Amino acid sequence: MNVPFILDTDTVWYAIGDGSLEKTINRLNDYHRIIILVDENVETYCLSVFFELVPSMRECDLIRVSSGEKNKNISQSSYIWNELTRLNASRDTLLLNLGGGVITDSGGFAAATFKRGMRFVNVPTTLLGMVDAAIGGKTGVDFHDFKNQVGLFVDPVGVIIEPVFLKTLEHLQWQSGFAEVLKYALIMDKDLWTKLEGRHFTEVEDWNRVIIKAARDKIDIVRFDASERGVRKNLNFGHTVGHALESFFLKTHDATTHGKAIAAGMICEAWISSKMFEFDCTQLDEIVTMIDKNFERLSFDDSKIPLLIELMHQDKKVRGNKMMFSLLRKLGKATHDIEVEAQLIEDSLKYYLKSEKCN
Amino acid sequence: MNVPFILDTDTVWYAIGDGSLEKTINRLNDYHRIIILVDENVETYCLSVFFELVPSMRECDLIRVSSGEKNKNISQSSYIWNELTRLNASRDTLLLNLGGGVITDSGGFAAATFKRGMRFVNVPTTLLGMVDAAIGGKTGVDFHDFKNQVGLFVDPVGVIIEPVFLKTLEHLQWQSGFAEVLKYALIMDKDLWTKLEGRHFTEVEDWNRVIIKAARDKIDIVRFDASERGVRKNLNFGHTVGHALESFFLKTHDATTHGKAIAAGMICEAWISSKMFEFDCTQLDEIVTMIDKNFERLSFDDSKIPLLIELMHQDKKVRGNKMMFSLLRKLGKATHDIEVEAQLIEDSLKYYLKSEKCN
Repeated sequence: MNVPFILDTDTVWYAIGDGSLEKTINRLNDYHRIIILVDENVETYCLSVFFELVPSMRECDLIRVSSGEKNKNISQSSYIWNELTRLNASRDTLLLNLGGGVITDSGGFAAATFKRGMRFVNVPTTLLGMVDAAIGGKTGVDFHDFKNQVGLFVDPVGVIIEPVFLKTLEHLQWQSGFAEVLKYALIMDKDLWTKLEGRHFTEVEDWNRVIIKAARDKIDIVRFDASERGVRKNLNFGHTVGHALESFFLKTHDATTHGKAIAAGMICEAWISSKMFEFDCTQLDEIVTMIDKNFERLSFDDSKIPLLIELMHQDKKVRGNKMMFSLLRKLGKATHDIEVEAQLIEDSLKYYLKSEKCN
Repeated sequence: MNVPFILDTDTVWYAIGDGSLEKTINRLNDYHRIIILVDENVETYCLSVFFELVPSMRECDLIRVSSGEKNKNISQSSYIWNELTRLNASRDTLLLNLGGGVITDSGGFAAATFKRGMRFVNVPTTLLGMVDAAIGGKTGVDFHDFKNQVGLFVDPVGVIIEPVFLKTLEHLQWQSGFAEVLKYALIMDKDLWTKLEGRHFTEVEDWNRVIIKAARDKIDIVRFDASERGVRKNLNFGHTVGHALESFFLKTHDATTHGKAIAAGMICEAWISSKMFEFDCTQLDEIVTMIDKNFERLSFDDSKIPLLIELMHQDKKVRGNKMMFSLLRKLGKATHDIEVEAQLIEDSLKYYLKSEKCN
């Protein structure tokens, strides 16, 4: 495997792994002008690293927004449109989104709607951004209480995944990204699972390879199904229960992290999968053990289970009392649009709370 | 020629002429649900006509916005997103934009960005909408002082051009649309010119045919060049000088109408064309006579010409002191990306003010 790994598709190019920034920065020369979008954390922790790798970018104008999901809204978009206007950006200008998922979501949306379409490049600085948010063309902002209610499917021209920025991350940010890495292993990449199994994420040695594998898994899916009508739904594994837990903790306890919520969701949905597709106990235990090694369990009272199921109903498509899940057929293979009864979801949450082994 | 004229392209279907609503409304049956976007004028003058033609639509939910270009902004988009959220619209819901250019621009943008892409249909109710705004996928809203600064190229699934709504129009609205009809004749449709020449727009007998021809001209262009990188620029004929006049009158006098400003722009740019491509005086006089028959001349002092040229500089691409125009090679054939010196633009405005014949 070459590092950096370079992939040119019809619509997007990707560069993944150490050296990807230096290797591909000349691809940006076609653009009349580049403007860099950052938040205050990226400015503090990543911008000097970025400029050291690609000194020519020091001359670019910067747009600074406030970090955090709570600021990912239409006011932020208006602020970016305003700055682009003030800086006299044209449709030949390129927006370089340097940051985590909030920056690539919000920057992609603002760029794609400025003067009916300015182009943009994503340079993710978090593990979650590198293996998930920066890839696949989902852009958007939250609207009132609804996540990504306003947005677009629109591809960046390029995605540069440079692991050097991982050094700036804190433990919880690593963990959030690692939940998605494990998800790819579970839904489609047995080989990646084998690489990771038994390890805590701090013990992973070769992040270059892990990130390249995880990012390629996501790229393979979104190339087939950009607009999420089929196979892309597999990426929702762990997220139906996981998102409900995330919303529940946001409303009632201290907010949990995305990583812990998705980890909990994957345990519940792996259990549902094992019931529906009858895979053996050993495989379920294997999955749960690995997740538990990396993520602390969430704690909630089992009287809250009906509320959690109610939250899932609001979030997803419902047919009668049944909900549509993406589940595992076995370790390394997922399937989507599977109807699951409310009772089975309830039982999966009870299973999660008991922390019982299957075997 | 069949009326209504039906055209299915890869991305959009069009129905144009009397009976098009009744003929194609069943194509909307595929959608789980339809929501209709209107403004107060459309609600007063067109909605009952619409419901009479397609009674099944009476049950649809309505979203009402305030009419007029001054309301075509991000607050209006937020209001539409809010209403779509309140009405529990999903990505399977269809937004039916019933109205003039403001409704189709703003509704198209709001729909295309709601939940990363709800589909929409345009049902224009003004002549300008029927022959121009509803066709070609330009959507967007104004941002601060900039027209359509925030928006997208995104096609509706269908465009239903039903001339019955023309009966609701006032004189000035007819005139604004007619300027665009004449533009198509001049840039690409000698046959349409022949049909119209010598007539005031109130004397046109067969609007079905005229609208079908004009709308097809626009469709032909946007099918070839959706994103305006080449031949679509021909549609800017008359609009470089025309938009500058429109802005100038908005700032200094009472606002003029789009139609009169574009008519003035076409006279100036036809004169520039005649100088650059050496077509004979008779042809220029023919063009000017027809425009003058339908549009009163604008009046401004020739000391304002430098300000007008300054406004054009802000609006368009500039190379040095030269500006890029779309011009006529002859009557019925246009060309784009032609550099024009400021002096020639100035002279064209002087020519316009003098109302001299060429011959």
